Amino acid sequence: MTLTLEQAQAMIAAATAKAKELNVKMNIAVVDAGANLTAFVRMDGAWLGSVDISIKKAKTARFFDMPTGEIGKISQPGGSLYNIEHSNNGLITFPGGIPIKAANGEIIGAIGVSGDSVENDHTVASAGLEAYK
Amino acid sequence: MTLTLEQAQAMIAAATAKAKELNVKMNIAVVDAGANLTAFVRMDGAWLGSVDISIKKAKTARFFDMPTGEIGKISQPGGSLYNIEHSNNGLITFPGGIPIKAANGEIIGAIGVSGDSVENDHTVASAGLEAYK
Amino acid sequence: MTLTLEQAQAMIAAATAKAKELNVKMNIAVVDAGANLTAFVRMDGAWLGSVDISIKKAKTARFFDMPTGEIGKISQPGGSLYNIEHSNNGLITFPGGIPIKAANGEIIGAIGVSGDSVENDHTVASAGLEAYK
Amino acid sequence: MTLTLEQAQAMIAAATAKAKELNVKMNIAVVDAGANLTAFVRMDGAWLGSVDISIKKAKTARFFDMPTGEIGKISQPGGSLYNIEHSNNGLITFPGGIPIKAANGEIIGAIGVSGDSVENDHTVASAGLEAYK
Repeated sequence: MTLTLEQAQAMIAAATAKAKELNVKMNIAVVDAGANLTAFVRMDGAWLGSVDISIKKAKTARFFDMPTGEIGKISQPGGSLYNIEHSNNGLITFPGGIPIKAANGEIIGAIGVSGDSVENDHTVASAGLEAYK
Repeated sequence: MTLTLEQAQAMIAAATAKAKELNVKMNIAVVDAGANLTAFVRMDGAWLGSVDISIKKAKTARFFDMPTGEIGKISQPGGSLYNIEHSNNGLITFPGGIPIKAANGEIIGAIGVSGDSVENDHTVASAGLEAYK
Repeated sequence: MTLTLEQAQAMIAAATAKAKELNVKMNIAVVDAGANLTAFVRMDGAWLGSVDISIKKAKTARFFDMPTGEIGKISQPGGSLYNIEHSNNGLITFPGGIPIKAANGEIIGAIGVSGDSVENDHTVASAGLEAYK
Repeated sequence: MTLTLEQAQAMIAAATAKAKELNVKMNIAVVDAGANLTAFVRMDGAWLGSVDISIKKAKTARFFDMPTGEIGKISQPGGSLYNIEHSNNGLITFPGGIPIKAANGEIIGAIGVSGDSVENDHTVASAGLEAYK
């Protein structure tokens, strides 16, 4: 299964619509199975620093095939993966990155969102994910 | 004048249409006045190595407010800007990056395209630019 | 004493066998006395983000001649080596990296494993180490 | 089509055999369709500087779906892709990297070899490629 640009753009459109509904400004990135960037948008007025964060969230979610926030729970001081963020030219391990799973269970990419609270980032990423089919 | 996401996406759509017409697969990036990524797409099957190159072309064009190919002419051995590519975490100075000029003459961003010959890269970037209004 | 490729490959084969026994998918790296990569494998389906982590674990173990988890104990907030992970283009200081000691006591390299819990990573690295002779 | 570790290791074994036949010491890397490292070996006594070069050759060949030497022909001073090497955290554009093509024509990875003359590097990479099936 390969993630197509059309699928990635549909996910980004859905994520953008959710961001507007929440009245937040987001950076939204989608990577493919190889963790390579497929599509990206920065909504007008969204944080510049979140360009890189949204891309790193998408990559991190695909690197470890789990939502980024799950990694953050165990990368804290005293946690089993403390300071894992130093690998892979920088990971982002708070919520907002989610793997994309095909109908056959295969993980074919990930979406990453950054621009507001991590709760809103995750909500917007989830809305994008729901548009995948 | 500020480049909007809507404008960037219209430019990317026009560039994508031209790429399909030429039967080539492109990576297309748009940056804003601050040389920060605004939108990006990788067409299905386009070169993975051109993700970074298209973004660097767009940044390079805005960094110096001229088409990337113009810089390449003077970055050659013996040229006045020899090896300028070492700056800014890497420039790309062959054709495919073009500044976006507003009606008032202000440069408000740039488009960068990579995925085929530099002639086709430039043609597709130009087609994207024409969609700006 | 010099670590040979044949020895490194025997260690990787033993580590891979242990990973299969545990039903986990690992990235396994071996570095030599100079902390330079000697051999590496990524098992089918193993995390992409663990390519870099397994290599960094092997390097970290040789950089300081101790298991990576030992360093992690004192790189915590308030610890004597707080944030040592910022050095050497990124260290990984949780378990999974172990130095390789020759019969004469000399440290001649290290093995690094990443792909599952740190306990399993360490177990698989230990299994690889046992194949050294 | 996905490149398996077993296929990558068979290619590395064949490349290593050819290197021994030529009496040269090589670094040999294989990446998958996403340009992520799948397997690597450094033969005893091979150049340390070629660890990175062999990996970059494999990545470069997959980034642009062509043998690395083809890119080098047009990245020379005055060439259309002059200084493309500044992209993607460094490309290597002289011979020794070759894409791996599946029976259905899909490119599923690449092999990169470094350690001797570029002619020998390419010959050894080709020998590895022949073992793919």
